[in-house]
Amino acid sequence: MTISAKLMRSTTDFSDFISACIAAIGNDYVLTAEPEKASFLTDQRRRFTGQAIAVVKPGSTAEVAAIVRLCNQFNVPIVPQGGNTGLVLGSVPDRSGNAIVLSLGRLNRVRAVDPVNHTMTVEAGCILQNLQEAALAVERLLPLSLAAEGSCTIGGNLATNAGGTAVLRYGNTRELCLGLEVVTAQGEIMEGLRGLRKDNTGYDLRDLFIGAEGTLGIITAAVMKIFPVPKAQLTALVALQTPAQALRLLTLAQGHCGAALTGFELMSDLCLQLVARHMPQLTFPFSARHPHYVLLELSDSESEAHASTMLESLLASALENKICQDAVLAISAAQSKTLWRWRESISSAQAREGKNIKHDVSLPISRIAEFITVTDALLQASFPECRNVTFGHLGDGNLHYNVSPAIGYSEELFLSHQSSINLVVHDSVHQFGGSISAEHGIGALKREELLRYKSAVEIGLMKTIKQALDPHNLMNPGKVI
Amino acid sequence: MTISAKLMRSTTDFSDFISACIAAIGNDYVLTAEPEKASFLTDQRRRFTGQAIAVVKPGSTAEVAAIVRLCNQFNVPIVPQGGNTGLVLGSVPDRSGNAIVLSLGRLNRVRAVDPVNHTMTVEAGCILQNLQEAALAVERLLPLSLAAEGSCTIGGNLATNAGGTAVLRYGNTRELCLGLEVVTAQGEIMEGLRGLRKDNTGYDLRDLFIGAEGTLGIITAAVMKIFPVPKAQLTALVALQTPAQALRLLTLAQGHCGAALTGFELMSDLCLQLVARHMPQLTFPFSARHPHYVLLELSDSESEAHASTMLESLLASALENKICQDAVLAISAAQSKTLWRWRESISSAQAREGKNIKHDVSLPISRIAEFITVTDALLQASFPECRNVTFGHLGDGNLHYNVSPAIGYSEELFLSHQSSINLVVHDSVHQFGGSISAEHGIGALKREELLRYKSAVEIGLMKTIKQALDPHNLMNPGKVI
Repeated sequence: MTISAKLMRSTTDFSDFISACIAAIGNDYVLTAEPEKASFLTDQRRRFTGQAIAVVKPGSTAEVAAIVRLCNQFNVPIVPQGGNTGLVLGSVPDRSGNAIVLSLGRLNRVRAVDPVNHTMTVEAGCILQNLQEAALAVERLLPLSLAAEGSCTIGGNLATNAGGTAVLRYGNTRELCLGLEVVTAQGEIMEGLRGLRKDNTGYDLRDLFIGAEGTLGIITAAVMKIFPVPKAQLTALVALQTPAQALRLLTLAQGHCGAALTGFELMSDLCLQLVARHMPQLTFPFSARHPHYVLLELSDSESEAHASTMLESLLASALENKICQDAVLAISAAQSKTLWRWRESISSAQAREGKNIKHDVSLPISRIAEFITVTDALLQASFPECRNVTFGHLGDGNLHYNVSPAIGYSEELFLSHQSSINLVVHDSVHQFGGSISAEHGIGALKREELLRYKSAVEIGLMKTIKQALDPHNLMNPGKVI
Repeated sequence: MTISAKLMRSTTDFSDFISACIAAIGNDYVLTAEPEKASFLTDQRRRFTGQAIAVVKPGSTAEVAAIVRLCNQFNVPIVPQGGNTGLVLGSVPDRSGNAIVLSLGRLNRVRAVDPVNHTMTVEAGCILQNLQEAALAVERLLPLSLAAEGSCTIGGNLATNAGGTAVLRYGNTRELCLGLEVVTAQGEIMEGLRGLRKDNTGYDLRDLFIGAEGTLGIITAAVMKIFPVPKAQLTALVALQTPAQALRLLTLAQGHCGAALTGFELMSDLCLQLVARHMPQLTFPFSARHPHYVLLELSDSESEAHASTMLESLLASALENKICQDAVLAISAAQSKTLWRWRESISSAQAREGKNIKHDVSLPISRIAEFITVTDALLQASFPECRNVTFGHLGDGNLHYNVSPAIGYSEELFLSHQSSINLVVHDSVHQFGGSISAEHGIGALKREELLRYKSAVEIGLMKTIKQALDPHNLMNPGKVI
């Protein structure tokens, strides 16, 4: 058989496969034309474009299962995709062109909302923001919240165990999920949509699929926890000298406020300087600059008056104990929103400043101050042309330890050092017992790095599980492991 | 080869194995004499006594790994054991006599306590109560609390994903654990003692070992979350007409108190009647009897005065909305303790009343009232000689749906119906989307029942994982799956 005969046979196989997919879910939902496929093949940050036989859009769990069984029959790899907002190239195919993208977008029904059980049962393709609104419609809070909430899907949030801004109080997506419906690599449907707080009947299959980035099976629906809506949310911006002071403030706030503490974000002065430079419409809230700031949020089940008393008492105690230098309280929802804008604008301010290198790392909270000191010094020693733009969810131990080039330094030259800079930062993270991916996952982007930092035993167990559940390596191959 | 020759060879193999164990961990820690082994072979409720080649007590993780490797070499099954307080025959060997009991009791060091990271790193054999005290020594709370806390071990709590009285606020043992050290079925050490709130670097191996009841590997140490100690805890006993009213009170309390609501226990009048009959030293707190009661606990990070105001306002609202008929507030720690004694004495009062049949079930919280009505009626129809002694952690959806015989009815005859009664109750639980094991696990006791209620796909996935991680079926065989 010649090479061209092989290719022809392969093309024929694909056309049989495509026909079978069309027969299973309808002509409208099997996209093969390049323009139709395009938006599914490039990642959100436009760093990578892959190829695919087709983008397949099943409309129900049964149709997802049917497609997976066809993929088994024709030996076609599957890249599951939700909102395609991931940051680690986990939801786009590679360039081989031998896979399909399986978009969950049409599975977008809220199957049930149960305010008494504090749960909602939702399909994987639901947009996160729509689910937040569906919860609010019955006076409940779905606390999962992140920058991409207007376009990311709950299936993607589950597949990547998304973090976001409410982890300190409510946990990661994993902690918000009680049950899953999953299509296995063999195209069977695991019906695990249980809305139970306690269920000790065998292995925890739910948490195995959560965070597996679609490499073990396809999440098609989930039972998510919802909560009473807090009666008040108050925000303060606190000025401090050092990250060590921020840690002391965190401990004080945790003791003072317990579960009412729902946000605790650290920002260096350079972060706010960049925001001030690129968003001049924002008025800097302090009369002087300080080396670091903490944005602190309280949510109260009682009343705004009560939250206000609690926050004032906390800040008085912090000032008295010299844990902070100054503080600004938001006394209205609008003021609170403005304070949050300082935090939320850092990424885009840094982007307007120019190209930069991001690190999504986590550390034992008690070691963060030392980590910053040590790693800043290591970086300065190797790359004096670096500027640290360090901020993050300090309450969760999660730092966005980002690095920009010095003013006037060549961006191209700076980016050419990316892997060396990653190595310095991630080696330091590893030394401090931290994680090189706090909330973004591994995808295709950090797969090689994972092998450097994860122990051989853990990698071995992960490979064993992958091989057992997906022996033909059809589920999102080339991602995670 | 004759049968006796086979037996002799088998005995010889055991003696080689025993010698190798002694060489690995020392003569004092390999117990082969029957009297020394006895207490490890019978379950806590004295329903079953198994056999074992030896009880092996390694003193370190490395020694656990060495023993597991010897078990692989000699093909000897392993029954890991903590405090042996389990309720489903998960920690005792079967009667074949071909296994060892591997006791974790000597791994009892607290390796680290980090009050700023709110974590403690502990070995599997630590007694739960000792860990609660170690946390209190640094002004932190380890919230895991259950009846057996004076003798159960954290390794057993993790292996069974123990529940207990604080799940409503703090979650099950699973939610309290950040990292694990595990000896795999091959005798390798998985070093996963990370104290991180966020870590998205691959499959969730931690949650796979938690709740697996020692069938996939042996947990040797863990990083557990600890919390600020609440400043005040207040308790109320509330009298109501129906479980449906209890649910309305729960929703009201969750809205009113948010995360301050740390206990919500339902008890039927018969429960308290049994306590009153068998613990006459307790004074019934109401002037009249009511069909149901709720024991409600608030924990407050602020002050006793604040907690008191919150509780009074909640109860006033409940009375006003006719959600409850009466309420008693504990205004001191001693009074609070007395109220809790009514709840905590139900099991022993029921035991003093005579033999009974227990069900540890969970349900979607919104369906509990209907479940009780329907299941009570089903039971009465099939077994009119039943008395329901229903109580449980309503806030978690967990009912101890226990059944006693009618007064004067033969206990023997009653117990002869046990499997039929289990079938009525568990079929009903399944109909309502519940779980036949909320917090006790499966062990050897509920293994057959699991096959009735778990879907074929889930059982298949569990078997695939078991086969992949423990291909020689050496880890606690005959348990769970």
